[in-house]
Amino acid sequence: MTHSIAILGASGYTGAELVRILATHPGMKIAALSGERKAGLAMAEVFAHLAHLDLPVLQRIEEIDLGRVDLAFCALPHATSQAVIADLPRDLKVVDLSADFRLRDPAAYEKWYGKPHAALDLQAEAVYGLTEFYRDKIRAARLVAGTGCNAATGQYALCPLIEAGVIDLDEIVIDLKAGVSGAGRSLKENLLHAELSEGTHPYSAGGTHRHLGEFDQEFSALAGRPVQVQFTPHLLPMNRGILATVYVRGDARAVHAVLAARYASEPFLHVLPFGAPPSTRSVRGSNFVHIGVVGDRVPGRAVVFAALDNLTKGSSGQAIQNANLMLGLEETTGLMAAPVFP
Amino acid sequence: MTHSIAILGASGYTGAELVRILATHPGMKIAALSGERKAGLAMAEVFAHLAHLDLPVLQRIEEIDLGRVDLAFCALPHATSQAVIADLPRDLKVVDLSADFRLRDPAAYEKWYGKPHAALDLQAEAVYGLTEFYRDKIRAARLVAGTGCNAATGQYALCPLIEAGVIDLDEIVIDLKAGVSGAGRSLKENLLHAELSEGTHPYSAGGTHRHLGEFDQEFSALAGRPVQVQFTPHLLPMNRGILATVYVRGDARAVHAVLAARYASEPFLHVLPFGAPPSTRSVRGSNFVHIGVVGDRVPGRAVVFAALDNLTKGSSGQAIQNANLMLGLEETTGLMAAPVFP
Amino acid sequence: MTHSIAILGASGYTGAELVRILATHPGMKIAALSGERKAGLAMAEVFAHLAHLDLPVLQRIEEIDLGRVDLAFCALPHATSQAVIADLPRDLKVVDLSADFRLRDPAAYEKWYGKPHAALDLQAEAVYGLTEFYRDKIRAARLVAGTGCNAATGQYALCPLIEAGVIDLDEIVIDLKAGVSGAGRSLKENLLHAELSEGTHPYSAGGTHRHLGEFDQEFSALAGRPVQVQFTPHLLPMNRGILATVYVRGDARAVHAVLAARYASEPFLHVLPFGAPPSTRSVRGSNFVHIGVVGDRVPGRAVVFAALDNLTKGSSGQAIQNANLMLGLEETTGLMAAPVFP
Amino acid sequence: MTHSIAILGASGYTGAELVRILATHPGMKIAALSGERKAGLAMAEVFAHLAHLDLPVLQRIEEIDLGRVDLAFCALPHATSQAVIADLPRDLKVVDLSADFRLRDPAAYEKWYGKPHAALDLQAEAVYGLTEFYRDKIRAARLVAGTGCNAATGQYALCPLIEAGVIDLDEIVIDLKAGVSGAGRSLKENLLHAELSEGTHPYSAGGTHRHLGEFDQEFSALAGRPVQVQFTPHLLPMNRGILATVYVRGDARAVHAVLAARYASEPFLHVLPFGAPPSTRSVRGSNFVHIGVVGDRVPGRAVVFAALDNLTKGSSGQAIQNANLMLGLEETTGLMAAPVFP
Repeated sequence: MTHSIAILGASGYTGAELVRILATHPGMKIAALSGERKAGLAMAEVFAHLAHLDLPVLQRIEEIDLGRVDLAFCALPHATSQAVIADLPRDLKVVDLSADFRLRDPAAYEKWYGKPHAALDLQAEAVYGLTEFYRDKIRAARLVAGTGCNAATGQYALCPLIEAGVIDLDEIVIDLKAGVSGAGRSLKENLLHAELSEGTHPYSAGGTHRHLGEFDQEFSALAGRPVQVQFTPHLLPMNRGILATVYVRGDARAVHAVLAARYASEPFLHVLPFGAPPSTRSVRGSNFVHIGVVGDRVPGRAVVFAALDNLTKGSSGQAIQNANLMLGLEETTGLMAAPVFP
Repeated sequence: MTHSIAILGASGYTGAELVRILATHPGMKIAALSGERKAGLAMAEVFAHLAHLDLPVLQRIEEIDLGRVDLAFCALPHATSQAVIADLPRDLKVVDLSADFRLRDPAAYEKWYGKPHAALDLQAEAVYGLTEFYRDKIRAARLVAGTGCNAATGQYALCPLIEAGVIDLDEIVIDLKAGVSGAGRSLKENLLHAELSEGTHPYSAGGTHRHLGEFDQEFSALAGRPVQVQFTPHLLPMNRGILATVYVRGDARAVHAVLAARYASEPFLHVLPFGAPPSTRSVRGSNFVHIGVVGDRVPGRAVVFAALDNLTKGSSGQAIQNANLMLGLEETTGLMAAPVFP
Repeated sequence: MTHSIAILGASGYTGAELVRILATHPGMKIAALSGERKAGLAMAEVFAHLAHLDLPVLQRIEEIDLGRVDLAFCALPHATSQAVIADLPRDLKVVDLSADFRLRDPAAYEKWYGKPHAALDLQAEAVYGLTEFYRDKIRAARLVAGTGCNAATGQYALCPLIEAGVIDLDEIVIDLKAGVSGAGRSLKENLLHAELSEGTHPYSAGGTHRHLGEFDQEFSALAGRPVQVQFTPHLLPMNRGILATVYVRGDARAVHAVLAARYASEPFLHVLPFGAPPSTRSVRGSNFVHIGVVGDRVPGRAVVFAALDNLTKGSSGQAIQNANLMLGLEETTGLMAAPVFP
Repeated sequence: MTHSIAILGASGYTGAELVRILATHPGMKIAALSGERKAGLAMAEVFAHLAHLDLPVLQRIEEIDLGRVDLAFCALPHATSQAVIADLPRDLKVVDLSADFRLRDPAAYEKWYGKPHAALDLQAEAVYGLTEFYRDKIRAARLVAGTGCNAATGQYALCPLIEAGVIDLDEIVIDLKAGVSGAGRSLKENLLHAELSEGTHPYSAGGTHRHLGEFDQEFSALAGRPVQVQFTPHLLPMNRGILATVYVRGDARAVHAVLAARYASEPFLHVLPFGAPPSTRSVRGSNFVHIGVVGDRVPGRAVVFAALDNLTKGSSGQAIQNANLMLGLEETTGLMAAPVFP
């Protein structure tokens, strides 16, 4: 059975990535695409790489007949998303890729996003979309909140370690390297090719990045007490990919063993042999995550690395993985394409 | 029905690309992988992006039981390929990705490759692998010779025009821009990142590039008389992609009409609206070709652009497309994945 | 003696490149910098790589005391430039980097730039800034018009050949590969890193690029009759650099000999040995031009390559070279820094 | 007065960078260049970007008349360097760019480099080349050992803090991002463009990188007790540049104040305003270092960033800065060129 789906906000990179994956997904069919500023355009005019597909023209959301849609992916900007979803039919399944429903605590939302949440009931209803840790709830959910791409990467490295109690909760440093597509298709001077290529710099340093809200929420919940990590993201001259380098206190072999055991039967999470670090190139364009653990010369310290593609496993691939669960499809449907290298 | 296939020479980029595509191909299963220098290694040690797959260990060719294989892809170096294929069972279907069987004329082979051909009977038997122009012969072939990646790009722009007689055969210039993966995983100083990034330069200029042998053969056959194009390839700081900019004499609208008509029902060849040029980014990681035609301000002159991914449509994707035909599968099986952008 | 100079429009890439070169120029000192939208900012806030310099704060043009300035570089947008220069003191030496004064014929200006020229007297006065071909006039000029960066590259390959009459004037194709900094620091979706990296595409194809106005003007003047070239620029994923691949009819050895002789005593123009093509990497960040000639297998045809850095020799380096002449300084002053490789 | 210098090992990237800087250095003239495997070649054949210079042909070291040379730069591979320098005249001033004389303790050398040192007397004589911390000794030295490029970057961030006692010595993490030219012009599969572009990965993780030997030596000396940092370098798809992200315990404002005071009169070390992080792009191709300090949301923790160009300030620029001191020249001579951006 093929499910009919809509993509709201199809003119950004996560929207295009949803279309890319769904192009060969056997269980879902794109019934509608929205794009406010680009309404009326063919998708091929917005994204030339999708020109070979027979896709609906971009519409305004209100023009879409949502009664014929089984599930909507919402790839709209933060804050816009909560307003739009509040107006959708209450029985429509929704996977939201914005930040609007990631934080369960309204106060935390207001702290990190600078204004009160406008759809508190939806916020309460939403299930956090880190599939491997919320699988059962996602299967039963109506509204799933996609995680931040950086937040997902850090959590894949750390959640099992916090669960298992094998690391010091007060001494966690996440140094993150991110590709530029995570910043979206937005017109900012610092995203121009000439500004970004051939160099690197940190951004949102000092504990100001919004994905810290997710780290705080999830790590504290797992630990049963407040956990605050240090987190510094850096922008790298590559389009796709996130590498989290996580410095922890704990026995490196034990750290590796916990991760290997926890992810042994996960279809997309691959723990490398002890001592082998991952590369973002090895997961590019795919839904896979590579995780590595290296012991440090300083006894009792370890480095955990996690690499994923921010647009796929970090956003749109995760969204489809969750939608598969919500629609009763096999979780991996449409997502097993191998990474693209070189 | 799933066909059992072998990849001979799996440790290079075209070998890895075959594995990548076959990873989700419903009609073929990888039964054996060879790699002479890397025999004994797991594929994950040679290409970390394939670590999630359950693949055979790399073997020496003589260790492979070819009796259980329905088709072999041969992704070996030029010259090696003809020696290896000569030793394969004569009823084994073979798709060769090397240059060894592209030229039908032994003298032409010797001219472009510098030594006599060592398997003349196979050379006579081989069918040239430009699918859209040799489809019926490929379907019936035992041995198919994959085209050069540059050669394929130029031919997609020009073959229909030569067939239709709408351009001047003596005034054709192909200026080509190629990504670096076309040079393979070979240890050459001029392929180092520090040597290649952030710049461009021509190579094999002045009519010395070996793919001219293919242009000469195919264009002359279509024209019924000798045709010699000018051809200058350039190396660009990108991993995948070829753009051919082809300067022709002829009516631009007629040129566009011929290409649009010729490719109207081709699943992978997409002719853009008149005046719209393609980008290599729009076909990256896919089996699609984008073709554009622009008229010049000088009357009677036109520019034809063709863009494809050298590792996919230019090599391994083409090889699988041909194998699909040879095995009686739907031609597009396993090849409809959308391009990866950004 | 140190000359006092002003840079009008210092917040773009050519403005920054002027500052970069002038930072160690022994004969010029920056007395004033203008930037309309960024007035009041320190240069370090606009370009962090200039933070070590003791520079004037950005001002509005009307705030600058031009009476104390010996020469002004005008790096303003096209059309703005003519309005601003019309208001400058009539005895102030000016090197303009915009397109406003490149075309001597008002009708040609209107054709290529879409509106009538608003400062016809200045247009008549301006000297075209291709230093090696207008040196004496530049030395005596008050207003020099910097060339287009693409236009300069093509002219270095072709001007001596047209002068010498060794090529067919009706059969010239310029296929050009350009880095992205040539498009400036402008907020356009197609200049984002994620849009431009890892691929290539043509732009302004079909004889629509404005630099054709310069080619037409200069080539026709040299030939003594109308000359129309074909010209297709392509955007490449590199920040700096232009490579012109020029297809000509003529004896390749004669072509090489003419170029070698014409440029033998030029300090910045370097003709490579016959058969050796240049690379943009070999001139990056410098005022040098590398030129190569290769003969084609088709007798009577040759390919001429010219490579330069669009921001240096193609714009700001050229501007300073011209200013040196206008101020009575040694022409090469401050411009002999070697290219930056890798 | 112009000093006559030789570059031993001129065919690698640091050799080429020495030539690039010396091309416009008013106090030094290149009298001889050596390159064992490339002896007999012109430098233009080895590095096309130096083609405009009038340089000596590459020779074997034994062919060079060192009696006419005032100072030799030794840019030879590790281990080779100590053998060559041992054979040089004992009164010849030498700046060595290899790792051979960086570690004062023979046991430390053997530990990190895997074999005993073969020139213990020279090792004892050599002065560590971190100019800003060894300036007086360098001025008087005959043999100066250039630092590791990563080691320099980390030390610029940390040395003043350890000196001043404002950070916890047991809680230092250096997460480093390095461009690929640091790996040299060596034929390694993992340095190919297709392997490195569009991604990132760590290397020498877990405290195994040899530059830790320098960190241990210098930090322990400054602290007066053993100091062991954690250090993880990552390879980034950029040619030049190192960014060190250093996680420390200490008051962020105090950390910033110490760095700003310590470097206030340093010509090449630029401390950014509190809270502003640096970018490698802002120092590319130059001898400048940008340093930034950001406070973390976790009280008592700070992040220090240092960015430099590995080939310039990290190697060849540093070498020339030291040579300037050794020859009695102004320290900044030939080194004030502004960074190249974009």
